[in-house]
Amino acid sequence: MRPKIFLFGDSITEESFSDGGWGASLADLLCRKADIVLRGYSGYNTRWALKVVERVFPAAAENGGEHPAAVTVFFGANDACLPERCSGFQHVPLHEYKQNLRSIVSFLKNRWPQTVIILIAPPPIDEEARLRYPYIENTTGIPERTNEAAGSYAKACVDVANECQISAIDLWSRMQQIPNWQTECLWDGLHLSRIGNKIVFEEVANKLKEEGIGAEDLLVDLPLIEDVDPKKPLEAFDEF
Amino acid sequence: MRPKIFLFGDSITEESFSDGGWGASLADLLCRKADIVLRGYSGYNTRWALKVVERVFPAAAENGGEHPAAVTVFFGANDACLPERCSGFQHVPLHEYKQNLRSIVSFLKNRWPQTVIILIAPPPIDEEARLRYPYIENTTGIPERTNEAAGSYAKACVDVANECQISAIDLWSRMQQIPNWQTECLWDGLHLSRIGNKIVFEEVANKLKEEGIGAEDLLVDLPLIEDVDPKKPLEAFDEF
Repeated sequence: MRPKIFLFGDSITEESFSDGGWGASLADLLCRKADIVLRGYSGYNTRWALKVVERVFPAAAENGGEHPAAVTVFFGANDACLPERCSGFQHVPLHEYKQNLRSIVSFLKNRWPQTVIILIAPPPIDEEARLRYPYIENTTGIPERTNEAAGSYAKACVDVANECQISAIDLWSRMQQIPNWQTECLWDGLHLSRIGNKIVFEEVANKLKEEGIGAEDLLVDLPLIEDVDPKKPLEAFDEF
Repeated sequence: MRPKIFLFGDSITEESFSDGGWGASLADLLCRKADIVLRGYSGYNTRWALKVVERVFPAAAENGGEHPAAVTVFFGANDACLPERCSGFQHVPLHEYKQNLRSIVSFLKNRWPQTVIILIAPPPIDEEARLRYPYIENTTGIPERTNEAAGSYAKACVDVANECQISAIDLWSRMQQIPNWQTECLWDGLHLSRIGNKIVFEEVANKLKEEGIGAEDLLVDLPLIEDVDPKKPLEAFDEF
C-alpha cells in the first residue's frame, strides 16, 4: 500500500501537525501518496532518543514487512541546552550528540537499508525571546540556550550527515538568511512560527524530491476522479 | 504501539490535512497517542468506496495484527449530486447509498469487531456558491447539488448509523445552526472553511471521547518530559 514517512524528533516534530505545521503540510502534499507518521517527543535529546529508538521504529514483521520510504531525524535543540543553565538536564555534550546521531542513523540503516534518512539540524535561537518564554522557572536572567551553541550542534549534525552520506537540512543557517529571523521564523526563540514551519516543509519536500520520493515520484493510491470516465465510471474500479 | 484512527471519505477527508484542516487538528490533539491515517478519495461516492474498501483497509496480518481504534466514514456529498445535472456521473440513488453505507459498516465490523465506527453525514450545500465554483464546466445555470438533496442523504446516513448502532455526526444539521453557515462553514458551497473544519474536528473529537478513546483516555507513547526527573533523567528510559 502507501509508503510511510516517519518524522522522528523533539517538540519541533511533535508540534508539526499544529496549525500551519510542517508535518501537516507534508501530509497534505502527499495526501494520496504516502502516510506521514508522527514520532515527535517533546523535550527529548539524542541520548533519550537512542534509548527508545527500537520502540519507536517497529521491526519489519510488525510493520507489514515494508520499509519506510523516508525518516526525518530532527534532534539537537535540546542537546544544545547549556549544561550549567536551567535546562541543563537536557544537555548532551557535542561529541556524544554526534555519536548518538551516528548510532540512530546506523540503527535505521541496519533495519531498512533502502530507507532515505534526512537529518535536520536545530534552528537558530533568539536568546532574548527564550528569556521571555521560559518552559521552566528561570530566575537566572540568562537563557538556557544560546544561538552560538545551537550553531555548533547544527554544524555537527551536517558533519554527521556528510560522513554517513545522507541528506541534511541545515536549518540553523537557512533560517538566519531570513531578515528578522528571530521573530519571522520563531515564536518563542526556539519553536517555529508559521513562516518557520513553511521553511521546514519546503526544505523537507525538496529533499524528498532530490531523493526521488517527491510528490511527482510517488504513485497515487486508487484512481483519481479525473481518470474516471463519466460515461462508464465503474470501469476505473474494475480491478479493485 | 499506537492505535490507529482511519479517516475514510471523499475530498472533504482528502483535504483534511490542509491549513486548519480537521484531520491535522485530530493528529495534533492525539500527537503522542494515536496515528491518524488519511484515506480520503476526492470525488468518490459510496458505490466507488465499496469497490475499493478491501484495498483501503489492509487485513489484520498486513497491519501488525492490530485493529484500528476508530474509522470515520464520511461519504454522501458526491452521492447526492443530482442525476440529471452536470456531475450526474457521481450520483448514487438514496436507497443504494444507504445500502452501500451498510455494506461498508458490515465490512469494517467483520474485519475488526472492536473498532469504533463513526459515520459523518455530508455538509449542507450553498447552491449559489456551487454555481460560482464549479469543478467541471457548468453552463446550465443550475447547480449540480442542492441543499435539499444533501439533507436527504444526511438523514439517510444518520438512519443507517442508528440501525447499525454506531455513532453519527449530522453535519448537515449541525452546520446550519451557524449564522451565515453558507460562507462561515463553507468556502465554495461544499468544502469546509476554517470554521467548518473546526466544527468537524470538534464533533469527531467529542465522539471519540464518548466512545472512550478521547485524548484523555489514550495512553501517551513514551515518557513525557514532565515525567523525566531532572536529577536522574535516564531512569525514565530504563525500561525501553
